Amino acid sequence: MSTTQASPIDVPAGTRAPVEVTGEHPADDYPDGELALDLRWWSAANYLTAAQIYLRDNPLLRQPLRPEHIKPRLLGHWGTSPGLTMVHTLLNRLVRRTGTEVLMVTGPGHGGPAVLAGAYLDGTYSEVHPAVSADLAGLHRLVRQFSTPGGVSSHAGVHVPGSIHEGGELGYALLHAAGAAFDDPDLLVACVVGDGEAETGPLAASWRLPAFLDPGRDGAVLPILHLNGYKISGPTVLGRTSDDDVCRFLASQGWAPVVVAGDQPDHVFRALDAALSGARRTIADLQRRARAGQDVRPARWPAIVLRTPKGWTGPRTVDGVPVEGTQRSHQVPLANVRDDAGHRAQLAEWLRSYRPDEAFDADGRLVPELAALSPRGDLRLSASPRAGGPRFRVRPLPLPDLTDYALDLTGPGVLEHETTRPLGELLRDVITRTSRADGGGDFRLFSPDETASNRLGAVFEATDRCTQLPVLPGEEHLGPQGRVMEVLSEHLCEGWLEGYTLTGRHGLFATYEAFAMVAASMVVQHAKWLQLAATEPGRSPLPSLNVLLTSTCWRNDHNGFSHQGPGLIDTVAPLAPEVTRIWFPPDANSTLVVAEQCLTSRGQVNLVVVDKQQHLQYLTLDQARTHVAAGGSVWEWAGTEEPGRQRSEDPDVVLAAAGDVPTMEVLAAAQLLREHVPHLRVRVVNVVDLMGLLPPGEHPAAFTPERFAHLFTDSVDVVFAFHGHPRAIHPLLHGRPDIDRFHVRGFTEHGSTTTPFDMVVLNRMSRYHLALEALRRSRRVPEGGDRLARLCHAQLDRHRAHVVDALEDLPEIRTWTWHDPTRTDIEENR
Amino acid sequence: MSTTQASPIDVPAGTRAPVEVTGEHPADDYPDGELALDLRWWSAANYLTAAQIYLRDNPLLRQPLRPEHIKPRLLGHWGTSPGLTMVHTLLNRLVRRTGTEVLMVTGPGHGGPAVLAGAYLDGTYSEVHPAVSADLAGLHRLVRQFSTPGGVSSHAGVHVPGSIHEGGELGYALLHAAGAAFDDPDLLVACVVGDGEAETGPLAASWRLPAFLDPGRDGAVLPILHLNGYKISGPTVLGRTSDDDVCRFLASQGWAPVVVAGDQPDHVFRALDAALSGARRTIADLQRRARAGQDVRPARWPAIVLRTPKGWTGPRTVDGVPVEGTQRSHQVPLANVRDDAGHRAQLAEWLRSYRPDEAFDADGRLVPELAALSPRGDLRLSASPRAGGPRFRVRPLPLPDLTDYALDLTGPGVLEHETTRPLGELLRDVITRTSRADGGGDFRLFSPDETASNRLGAVFEATDRCTQLPVLPGEEHLGPQGRVMEVLSEHLCEGWLEGYTLTGRHGLFATYEAFAMVAASMVVQHAKWLQLAATEPGRSPLPSLNVLLTSTCWRNDHNGFSHQGPGLIDTVAPLAPEVTRIWFPPDANSTLVVAEQCLTSRGQVNLVVVDKQQHLQYLTLDQARTHVAAGGSVWEWAGTEEPGRQRSEDPDVVLAAAGDVPTMEVLAAAQLLREHVPHLRVRVVNVVDLMGLLPPGEHPAAFTPERFAHLFTDSVDVVFAFHGHPRAIHPLLHGRPDIDRFHVRGFTEHGSTTTPFDMVVLNRMSRYHLALEALRRSRRVPEGGDRLARLCHAQLDRHRAHVVDALEDLPEIRTWTWHDPTRTDIEENR
Repeated sequence: MSTTQASPIDVPAGTRAPVEVTGEHPADDYPDGELALDLRWWSAANYLTAAQIYLRDNPLLRQPLRPEHIKPRLLGHWGTSPGLTMVHTLLNRLVRRTGTEVLMVTGPGHGGPAVLAGAYLDGTYSEVHPAVSADLAGLHRLVRQFSTPGGVSSHAGVHVPGSIHEGGELGYALLHAAGAAFDDPDLLVACVVGDGEAETGPLAASWRLPAFLDPGRDGAVLPILHLNGYKISGPTVLGRTSDDDVCRFLASQGWAPVVVAGDQPDHVFRALDAALSGARRTIADLQRRARAGQDVRPARWPAIVLRTPKGWTGPRTVDGVPVEGTQRSHQVPLANVRDDAGHRAQLAEWLRSYRPDEAFDADGRLVPELAALSPRGDLRLSASPRAGGPRFRVRPLPLPDLTDYALDLTGPGVLEHETTRPLGELLRDVITRTSRADGGGDFRLFSPDETASNRLGAVFEATDRCTQLPVLPGEEHLGPQGRVMEVLSEHLCEGWLEGYTLTGRHGLFATYEAFAMVAASMVVQHAKWLQLAATEPGRSPLPSLNVLLTSTCWRNDHNGFSHQGPGLIDTVAPLAPEVTRIWFPPDANSTLVVAEQCLTSRGQVNLVVVDKQQHLQYLTLDQARTHVAAGGSVWEWAGTEEPGRQRSEDPDVVLAAAGDVPTMEVLAAAQLLREHVPHLRVRVVNVVDLMGLLPPGEHPAAFTPERFAHLFTDSVDVVFAFHGHPRAIHPLLHGRPDIDRFHVRGFTEHGSTTTPFDMVVLNRMSRYHLALEALRRSRRVPEGGDRLARLCHAQLDRHRAHVVDALEDLPEIRTWTWHDPTRTDIEENR
Repeated sequence: MSTTQASPIDVPAGTRAPVEVTGEHPADDYPDGELALDLRWWSAANYLTAAQIYLRDNPLLRQPLRPEHIKPRLLGHWGTSPGLTMVHTLLNRLVRRTGTEVLMVTGPGHGGPAVLAGAYLDGTYSEVHPAVSADLAGLHRLVRQFSTPGGVSSHAGVHVPGSIHEGGELGYALLHAAGAAFDDPDLLVACVVGDGEAETGPLAASWRLPAFLDPGRDGAVLPILHLNGYKISGPTVLGRTSDDDVCRFLASQGWAPVVVAGDQPDHVFRALDAALSGARRTIADLQRRARAGQDVRPARWPAIVLRTPKGWTGPRTVDGVPVEGTQRSHQVPLANVRDDAGHRAQLAEWLRSYRPDEAFDADGRLVPELAALSPRGDLRLSASPRAGGPRFRVRPLPLPDLTDYALDLTGPGVLEHETTRPLGELLRDVITRTSRADGGGDFRLFSPDETASNRLGAVFEATDRCTQLPVLPGEEHLGPQGRVMEVLSEHLCEGWLEGYTLTGRHGLFATYEAFAMVAASMVVQHAKWLQLAATEPGRSPLPSLNVLLTSTCWRNDHNGFSHQGPGLIDTVAPLAPEVTRIWFPPDANSTLVVAEQCLTSRGQVNLVVVDKQQHLQYLTLDQARTHVAAGGSVWEWAGTEEPGRQRSEDPDVVLAAAGDVPTMEVLAAAQLLREHVPHLRVRVVNVVDLMGLLPPGEHPAAFTPERFAHLFTDSVDVVFAFHGHPRAIHPLLHGRPDIDRFHVRGFTEHGSTTTPFDMVVLNRMSRYHLALEALRRSRRVPEGGDRLARLCHAQLDRHRAHVVDALEDLPEIRTWTWHDPTRTDIEENR
């Protein structure tokens, strides 16, 4: 018998049925006395949950409840909370009995007061936030701070020790849980998934985890699908789905579900305890066999379907209307408590039903017999050393010397190479250097099926694509212990990487630039987490979230307009400056240097934008190091200023670029100017760290006013070729001197045609357009300018005609390289 | 027997097993002669598919294949194509035999050449694009245009008649199919879902459709889950999942799947034909019973799991390596065909295997016996009048007169009201006016469970939340024929609305501002579709995509930082100007006017940003009409310029706002200035149509230079209070005179604290900050300015202390209303 039904609760007829599920989960021994204590701990947690929502004072109700004890604004989510506190209570018991290292991920992070109550009862909260002490004064602060000015927000955010998951924006609980479990063989991640969250796309896709989780090398994820039946104002889909269908749904994706349902606390406690205990045993057995070399595939991982009433143990009815077990208990079950004496009395009665005086002594300290129920030290759920807290440690990546991967150049802009290929070789060796005997490691690569097409295929010399599914004869680079995670879901890639870095490991998410927008909201939410974590007591710096945007808008004209979109740049640029960087390495060696910077940085979101295809290469490794460290440089070899003169005298015009294709086009334009109007003083600038453009004080990477003037002068017109939307540059520049002089060309949503013209015609950023713009914006009319303008216009016409006829660019564009007849050596750029 | 297995194909041992599924699908009569003809039609479609990928000339291979007949760059996706053409062939048969109106949605839109081949063979393509005629000249154009400069992109984009779904960014096929089926009772939407796409989050969540699709009122969606086993470089999850598990997965969510598998064309054709025919009968029966008033719930909708080899009928091996049935046939199975004579010979042999000369006559016309296989007229898949083509019609919404919903005001800024509530009343009556007897209609509201909390609850006087799942006694506003679609997935809401509007109906997606970012990528892709459709021959204008962003960043401080994010504004602003509008109605009446504008507009993405909570109301309906029509106005009643003087003399400073909270704060700042520095000439401007800021030529809504100067002058400093990220304003202004003078305050990702301070302290956009900034930026130092500055600083300190103590804003802020001692009447704003 594998379905545990403790007692009927009010779910629709036909919804609940005994089901056949895989695996045996016999009931465990659970002495009555221990159960009674656990129920008391649960009551204490529920009390603190409700008290946080309602009270600003009188935290243990030792005085009669008066209006001034109630917060003026009632916020927080009660409905999901008693289920969360129950799971916490019983995970405590599991850890007490087995010593298992458990991380709890709370999908319904809206139940923040419940998670916080658990952390407070564990003692962890007071350790991290000493002002919220384990006594009456601390209790007062605990209730007062919740969701009030000067206090804490209402979710399981960074202020809650043990949390790696805020649960604000729903959908990512199981992804964060999976990321935490990867490569952490001793960890059990218990992940509560709410039935509201279960309706989201990312969560729906993340049930496929058993196809990727290796019992030999990885930790375990135990989903607890908590069906309390309602969202904010109506029933949930899974809440109204029969046990049979819910279990079939989970079983079809590699889980062995058991159902625990009921509304009688003692019965549900016994049933859930047995389910947790059985799940742990099944997991341990699976892992033991796998680690002994047995083939356990297809592994069926335990999962628990938990049906308890929404707002359980809260007010049954209010003003004659049912509340417990309905959506009316989703947020605050009793409203208007300050003014309505009847409601206030009902609140007092409800709060007192948890018998706070039996949980807390005269000083407001948790009574010893309840305090003893928490596991010890780091085994406390809220003290997990995985969760970014004080005892959390990040092992730095053993990065090899970049010299072994750098391209040798004979000069700038001559060699063509796939820019991301050396990065793949670097990552290959990072994977090798971090490999453990069990197949695990500290670094993973995440990508929607594009590792090879993104020219990162060298990693397959060191590892495989990860799959737990059958591998056919002759198939290569595919296996259960692969550390390349390929799944056609940007949500899964991003969410797994988030979970992986939130628990201290390193990774890279490599993806199509346009479709990176699929996970834009996740990047925003993760940046917020990093931002808040940076100043939160007790939180240690996390490895950065590194996102490589390749297959960019400039080289996807053949795939059509849907594949062209630099929108993630617009999304990330306005986020908190202290956690955001957007990198535009112009070539392979600078990509290596940027990657090194990203992989050693902490607590940032790094967007690296670089195309995978053949591109001209410009910088030696040393030059790339100087360039990346500066964030942007004058490329003197490409300009026509007299050496040594530029500091005292401004050029006639500045040509600037950020991005690989823009760099090439700016250089080709500079060459046209050099050849046809040699007396025009042109400065060529390359920007690799976009945030340098922001004014000082607005970003840690902002160029100093002196450096900014060194690059762009204070008054000369700048023709700026930008990889992204052109208007993305102007907001960065606001606050710099005279920004009207910046004339930006970039990717525009031109496409009032389905025609995939090649790059130079398709956009307004070609070398000819840039040269024309430089002539137009120059301080003086150079001799030969008219002739060059005519040439540019003619070339644009010729090119347009040529590509329609020959279906490819003009030969002089396809085969263009940098060439300067007046110089033969590579000169240092600065 | 419900599983149809035609012949074994190379899938892993254990993957395939007979399964028990619901429903009977007996094999149909399929005469050998008709099958032979259908196989020939299929071959012709496959030929045209491969020819489009490879050939630029010699379209029927009537000359020996030479290098110059081959495109220089080989692009397109062969792997999925033969399956798509087979589905098209057999849907043709279904329509021929039954007259069913079928819309085909092609999830694997990367198989664009296959979809296009079908539209060409139908004759539809030549009707819409006469230059690509149904003869040899047209065939030449057909192959040459594909994925080349001057030609067409490689997906099932707007250029493909009959397509409502590009299939570029994966994940939305089943959502678009569902949106098309809603309220269209006679329509069968056949939706091919690729096994790559099936890994995405949005697609995974969209399998839950049976919980929302009403057999009585809606059309049907028939998913065809096409498992060819591979993505671009590895196996797919579902491709490696057993039939048993795939069917359990689908069955658990309300589908009755049958499996069709094999690699022998004639066998697979018979099996798929029987499955399609059986599905249609099951659907017809289900709908007939539901429409006769029987309770058919829970309805189990047919679905087809189709396993055929990737790159079926293409090269089996190339250079000794298996290609057919592997990921190597995903894109171009034979590479380097121009230079490699062996490959070229293999290509010619492969192409000739389709016997093009038996399909096309000497003039290149499809032979009559094959042409006869297409359905007639509008019944052709590619000619569906639902799909935006020439015979597509949009029924305008019967909008009621706004007068009935407008708030009566006694003056500006006195009445408080929930701004979105009158909109809910308007939508209620739109729903009533568009209701059909069968429960269907032309308008639906989509929201992640927030209709009531967004104060749009009046709609429940006219309709229900839609659910096909059990409804419990006492539950209200919940039923199978509801036209309010609530599901906790922004992807589903957005995707369903897209499908609904792509087929000519109207709707509104109302959602949390921060979490609207979840669907940002979908909004981008839909905008691209609208943009391209606007100039595509044969495409009619579609109803706009209307997105209401409410629960905004300014009123979510209590929910914490995760709930605050105006990022969708940054995403939409750089999209094509001809299809984008971002509206900031300051109050309820202007919201009504904006809503009317959005619901009557065509082909746009309309973001409407307005908070749901109690806000001051400023404009009468007539004033709101004038204001919205202008896009932005001077609110003379709020400024301190002398009447009539402003045109000849500039003010000392301009205070501008866009957004409801910014409007209130600007007015409160203006009142402070009026009271304390009455001689300062302040102009107060309100902007409702953000795109008006863009310079002329950059957006159809751009203010003329004269209007811009009327609002902002040419040189006076402007303190601009903006709803979104402050730096989002600068890129819009670039190109306007002297933009350095604009000083924008808005929502910043401040939160280096978890503290939910209330609005006025939390941000830098409060009335006191705005007044201080106005003093600082003013052209002259007004008498009393120092005193006001001291007052503002003192109030900020007082307020900060007060909220920490009282947990709410200062009374004078909470209860502030507009008050002008010198005027008593409402004056016209302009």
